[in-house]
Amino acid sequence: MTPITPLDQIRTLLGSSGFLDQPQDKEPYEKPWRGKDFHGKAALVALPTSVEQVQKIVKICHHHRIPIVPQGGNTGLVGGSTPDESGSEIVLNLSRMKRLRTVDPIGMSVTVEAGCVLASLNDQLAEQNLWFPVSIGSEGSAEIGGLVSTNAGGVNVIKYGTTRQLVMGLEVVLPDGSLLELLSPLKKDNTGYDLKQLFIGAEGTLGVITAATLSLVAKPTAYQTAFLALSSLEHAPIILQKAMHRLREYLVACELVPRLAVELVCKHLGATQPLQNPTDYMLLLELSGTCEESLLSNLLQGFLEPLFEENLITDGVLAESGKQRAQLWHIRDHISEAEKKEGAMVNFDITVPIDHVPAFITEASTAVSTLVPGIRILPFGHVGDGNIHFNLLEPTPLAPTAFLTHKPALKKAVYDIVHRHQGSISAEHGIGRERKGELATYKSTPALELMRTIKQAIDYYGVFNPGRVF
Amino acid sequence: MTPITPLDQIRTLLGSSGFLDQPQDKEPYEKPWRGKDFHGKAALVALPTSVEQVQKIVKICHHHRIPIVPQGGNTGLVGGSTPDESGSEIVLNLSRMKRLRTVDPIGMSVTVEAGCVLASLNDQLAEQNLWFPVSIGSEGSAEIGGLVSTNAGGVNVIKYGTTRQLVMGLEVVLPDGSLLELLSPLKKDNTGYDLKQLFIGAEGTLGVITAATLSLVAKPTAYQTAFLALSSLEHAPIILQKAMHRLREYLVACELVPRLAVELVCKHLGATQPLQNPTDYMLLLELSGTCEESLLSNLLQGFLEPLFEENLITDGVLAESGKQRAQLWHIRDHISEAEKKEGAMVNFDITVPIDHVPAFITEASTAVSTLVPGIRILPFGHVGDGNIHFNLLEPTPLAPTAFLTHKPALKKAVYDIVHRHQGSISAEHGIGRERKGELATYKSTPALELMRTIKQAIDYYGVFNPGRVF
Repeated sequence: MTPITPLDQIRTLLGSSGFLDQPQDKEPYEKPWRGKDFHGKAALVALPTSVEQVQKIVKICHHHRIPIVPQGGNTGLVGGSTPDESGSEIVLNLSRMKRLRTVDPIGMSVTVEAGCVLASLNDQLAEQNLWFPVSIGSEGSAEIGGLVSTNAGGVNVIKYGTTRQLVMGLEVVLPDGSLLELLSPLKKDNTGYDLKQLFIGAEGTLGVITAATLSLVAKPTAYQTAFLALSSLEHAPIILQKAMHRLREYLVACELVPRLAVELVCKHLGATQPLQNPTDYMLLLELSGTCEESLLSNLLQGFLEPLFEENLITDGVLAESGKQRAQLWHIRDHISEAEKKEGAMVNFDITVPIDHVPAFITEASTAVSTLVPGIRILPFGHVGDGNIHFNLLEPTPLAPTAFLTHKPALKKAVYDIVHRHQGSISAEHGIGRERKGELATYKSTPALELMRTIKQAIDYYGVFNPGRVF
Repeated sequence: MTPITPLDQIRTLLGSSGFLDQPQDKEPYEKPWRGKDFHGKAALVALPTSVEQVQKIVKICHHHRIPIVPQGGNTGLVGGSTPDESGSEIVLNLSRMKRLRTVDPIGMSVTVEAGCVLASLNDQLAEQNLWFPVSIGSEGSAEIGGLVSTNAGGVNVIKYGTTRQLVMGLEVVLPDGSLLELLSPLKKDNTGYDLKQLFIGAEGTLGVITAATLSLVAKPTAYQTAFLALSSLEHAPIILQKAMHRLREYLVACELVPRLAVELVCKHLGATQPLQNPTDYMLLLELSGTCEESLLSNLLQGFLEPLFEENLITDGVLAESGKQRAQLWHIRDHISEAEKKEGAMVNFDITVPIDHVPAFITEASTAVSTLVPGIRILPFGHVGDGNIHFNLLEPTPLAPTAFLTHKPALKKAVYDIVHRHQGSISAEHGIGRERKGELATYKSTPALELMRTIKQAIDYYGVFNPGRVF
């Protein structure tokens, strides 16, 4: 008699449509959605359709100490949702659990399963004029469980916060297979520790999120979008401070766009430079609201006039239609893609306090230029949160492989400067496998120890996403 | 030779001005700021002035298993910050640690020590036109450490969230005396577990908060305040939904005020009924913003007109000056005080989903009237968050002591209905000692178990606030 292996138990539990174990079937789940790193081998890809199935799988794995890699849309950028090379890990993909369980139009919340894709969620909410306001590039693939597990950020954080601020409740299968039901449409609940917070941003190391109650907003009815040429990078924090005092209620995005980024998008993706007189750094500033467009337009124009007078900005355009707005966002949204077409890159996703942004960019630019003369530097992104994607492109003459040999030195140089500015080495992408080493270097010992204490207390067999984060 | 006791070590450490151990000196720290319950006896009241002193006290207590009760302004309502009757607990009062360490006007944050009083913080921030937007009745006494430890709510939660949403970083002395430095002015930081969340709302059971980095906003420059007579309680959620769609950016408060509450404030505290034709339930609705007053005024009037046309409201006044606004808030803010002058009370601080508020109030009113015929019912407060202070007043003829004998039955009846409506038995006041029994009854077993796991992992000797929450 052949003994029934734990994997057989899982196969039986899920039925033939509920798992993948052939190499060609597993492969899409073994590598990230974009990027070439972190392509591993899974023992099995489990595709459960119910919380009960998830619990049973987790119990089997817990009992047999089989490592589990929770996976959603697999759009993460730090190797947190793909299996390692060992072939011993099970991918627990939640994509088939994608149901909207309840929508509360009065309390403005939705309870949705982890596998629902962000764009699909918002499509389904649109008819009730409701919106889950996390806006990220991968919204067509990213799933709710992954958004919550990585505390996704994006371009709307100034107005709506990160995913954490929008999670009202969670349903989690714990490492021993028990169900922690914390789904809740309540805005206030001070009954003991706020346990859901543990699982938000935990990158699947403490259990698997199977559903979430999310806070919704009314979909904005009006937008005003400006593209502004800064006379100096130093002026970005000053403009931001003014905006937070005078436009706070409607300010939804403030993105830094360097001249080189616009040029690359124009070169590789057919966009047009929006400004007649671009400067080294530009700002994409957007207001949104559930109000008349004229209200926003008056506010924005009243805000911009003194900026010209004070010479904080030297050129600018306002989008006068949805099409023009889309053209401005097209440039911002395609910077990464254009960079990739230009050559090999070393990327960062850091935060520093907003008033440190200019100094950080200046110092880090000097440091990396010393290491790699001619390196091309593209600091862009969410300057409104102090979150800069400090991306580095190879100098034209170098071959990609040669450039990438500098990656460790570039990382050390940039992270040391981030650390000196009280910054974070990962603003929104997380730690995963990519930044484990840096976390150990830059996080304080008491914080790391407390993280390990919590991991050990909850996932005492170390079954959930081992080797990620820690 | 007399052995040196642990209390002697603490006395020596703090010096004569740093502790209180005479009964008359300790007494103000042994009883809550308001209310008569939870008046205990402290072994010693420690009044440290530095984080280092706090660490040393905690190390001594940890070593000798001496229970510690962290205390701020002592304005809590659930017995979480006063010592028990045993006389063995040390009160660790942080009031002398009240320094603003840094203000970041660009990133709009402040790092402040735990003992700073909320009103004092805002006074010090006012000159920079900054504001920490937690608004609670006890702001003249409540301290930052307590606000964070209890995740304070208040009247502005619709716009700004609870305290949790405004905490960017914390400094915590852990139960073993080690320092967890998580102060941070960053809006985005995905480097591992968000450890600060554990201590927010933990009611001092996992360590003591010594400082916090708080998110600030520009102080509003304009307000519009309306007092509206509802034609039916059923209309409150409908009006709220409309407001969340049309006024979201500026909506800062939506408070339910029953007719009886207005009458009691008029009777005991000399206010005037604002409406010519009051109804059973009224709404205090407020907009605030950093904009022109005319903008808010136009928005509010445009919002209210159809409410009259649809007969959702039947009467209303708009505050036309700061003085009139203050008069409306005077009524709202003095409901509790007026109730106390009227007789014995049994109070609740519950949340239900907003669309369940009318059904909850109806069902709970029926249930308590059955238990105590003639009972007077005052459901008031933060209906915009579903958070109702469902307060019960003795029927006039009964003596207070007789009324209070019904307290256990009234609590059970109301909490059972809250639970059936997926509500919370403590919206903003916390658990402390007051609601321990109910927490054990209404919280799910897996959630309670996980809470205990965390408590055991972090405070393994059970030194911090033992017997509170659990």
